[in-house]
Amino acid sequence: MSSEFELIARYFSRQPADDSVQLGVGDDCTLLQPSPGHWLVVSVDTSVVDVHFPAAAPAHAIGHRALAVSLSDLAAMGATPRWCLMALTLPEAQDDWLADFARGFHELCDASGVSLVGGDIARGELSIGVTVHGELPPGTALRRNGARAGDVLAVTGTLGGGHGGLRAWQDGERNLDDPLLAAYLLPQPRIAAGQALRGVATAAIDVSDGLLADLRHVCEASGVGADLDGEALPLAPGLVERLGEEEAYRAALGGGDDYELLVSLPPSAVDEARARLEALGVPLTVIGSLAAEPGIRGVADSIPSGWLHFRGDTP
Amino acid sequence: MSSEFELIARYFSRQPADDSVQLGVGDDCTLLQPSPGHWLVVSVDTSVVDVHFPAAAPAHAIGHRALAVSLSDLAAMGATPRWCLMALTLPEAQDDWLADFARGFHELCDASGVSLVGGDIARGELSIGVTVHGELPPGTALRRNGARAGDVLAVTGTLGGGHGGLRAWQDGERNLDDPLLAAYLLPQPRIAAGQALRGVATAAIDVSDGLLADLRHVCEASGVGADLDGEALPLAPGLVERLGEEEAYRAALGGGDDYELLVSLPPSAVDEARARLEALGVPLTVIGSLAAEPGIRGVADSIPSGWLHFRGDTP
Repeated sequence: MSSEFELIARYFSRQPADDSVQLGVGDDCTLLQPSPGHWLVVSVDTSVVDVHFPAAAPAHAIGHRALAVSLSDLAAMGATPRWCLMALTLPEAQDDWLADFARGFHELCDASGVSLVGGDIARGELSIGVTVHGELPPGTALRRNGARAGDVLAVTGTLGGGHGGLRAWQDGERNLDDPLLAAYLLPQPRIAAGQALRGVATAAIDVSDGLLADLRHVCEASGVGADLDGEALPLAPGLVERLGEEEAYRAALGGGDDYELLVSLPPSAVDEARARLEALGVPLTVIGSLAAEPGIRGVADSIPSGWLHFRGDTP
Repeated sequence: MSSEFELIARYFSRQPADDSVQLGVGDDCTLLQPSPGHWLVVSVDTSVVDVHFPAAAPAHAIGHRALAVSLSDLAAMGATPRWCLMALTLPEAQDDWLADFARGFHELCDASGVSLVGGDIARGELSIGVTVHGELPPGTALRRNGARAGDVLAVTGTLGGGHGGLRAWQDGERNLDDPLLAAYLLPQPRIAAGQALRGVATAAIDVSDGLLADLRHVCEASGVGADLDGEALPLAPGLVERLGEEEAYRAALGGGDDYELLVSLPPSAVDEARARLEALGVPLTVIGSLAAEPGIRGVADSIPSGWLHFRGDTP
């Protein structure tokens, strides 16, 4: 096995994208110059083999996905991505795999305007921890606790694709042109959409745990309840064909791994939000409304309890 | 198993230490207010069970150690610790273990002035990734590339304790009052010493990979060579008694996990550096000097090649 230092030099040392990086990969720490007058927005997510992605998934998709799930948290705050660090744990260093993994990671870095500025490589079960840093003008973050009774509830893109893609993988689908498999293995964090919704949305969260679970987080943080319109849920293309209608509906409500943005906004702001997102090619669908009465009504009762936990199952 | 959210609420949500934390644990991201006119100093390290620590180590020591190794990187830059995030992967949630683990982690947070501001909990092989953030006035960081021919080479504290403690553990020692075992399982990052050496040391690195390996990093980054005085190496108390003289000497040169600071400084600055560290109760020992000629001379030849890699062995 190559040393940690050789691996870092070979696969993870690149010229940073901008001069905010005073010192990048290769010293004890990274030195960064934050933008004056901004808040720093930070999140970390770990992707573990056979929990969050299949061991046999293409390495470039594993690299892409590990970064995407962290960037999705920045998107949900409306932040501008700046820098990331990667803590890579892997059982052995295979050059082909690492080159492919690094390519997937770097391509999403480039597409998202984020620089890989540091990291660590350790030996163990394959897992990738990605810490992302973004920036925001003070007080402009889309938080979970700003939703109000009377707000409309809306979601970007479509739902259920993450779970549908997992099922497609389990069914033997290996072609990343398959929209469901791509939704699962190559999720696209809604970075531009999150920034566009600043000043319009009252609260936001990314749909990582499943629509109902994430909606519950918003409701609890904001002290409101929700009335969902089940028929309005934008199902991922091909989802009904693969799973059947009932299972597709459940995947949209509880499947998780969709990395869309769930937002609340005043009814008067829906047109403005939709126009901003349309300019980015991102659909926004109203799926319900918020009320003072706690609880989630409309469709939640039809989901068997315990069903929501499949996210942690081995893919 | 409790949900991720319950675990975070129970063990990892605490009031942040200062008001730079605009939003802590519990949203998609953390919101931090960096100090105006400072650089951000960031590092991540992963500690993997049976690679970096024994599975049966006390949980509070595992928590302490996972944070300590990351803080040691901040120390080596001379940075002031501010915030950290923890990516915890664990096979199952045992309340006793987690409470003890969190206590060890939080106690070192308090002692170091760092706030735990975010994290992630995933299921898998036990591993702890800690991202630490510190701050520095621009241009004051202790980097690896500032060492010059003619500089003196010095090290804080003592060497070989990390490896000696690993050997003590393997020999069945379980009492954390044993100085070697404490050096291995409860390392104390040299945070105050690192800050005190700003403006005095020309380069610094923490001794995590072993004195020779880390010295090599400094020499390569600075374009210098080194002449070590083997007899000057400050051996950890009890090391010769446990390992014998030859093995103790090897542990000091290549054992790693000592988390002391290895620094270069002009001969004229040695008294000042020693005085500053003495005020902190930290000894500083001159162990050699730097020269224009590349390579490490003095003691390196007596270390068999390959011997340095035991750090990754199962404890």
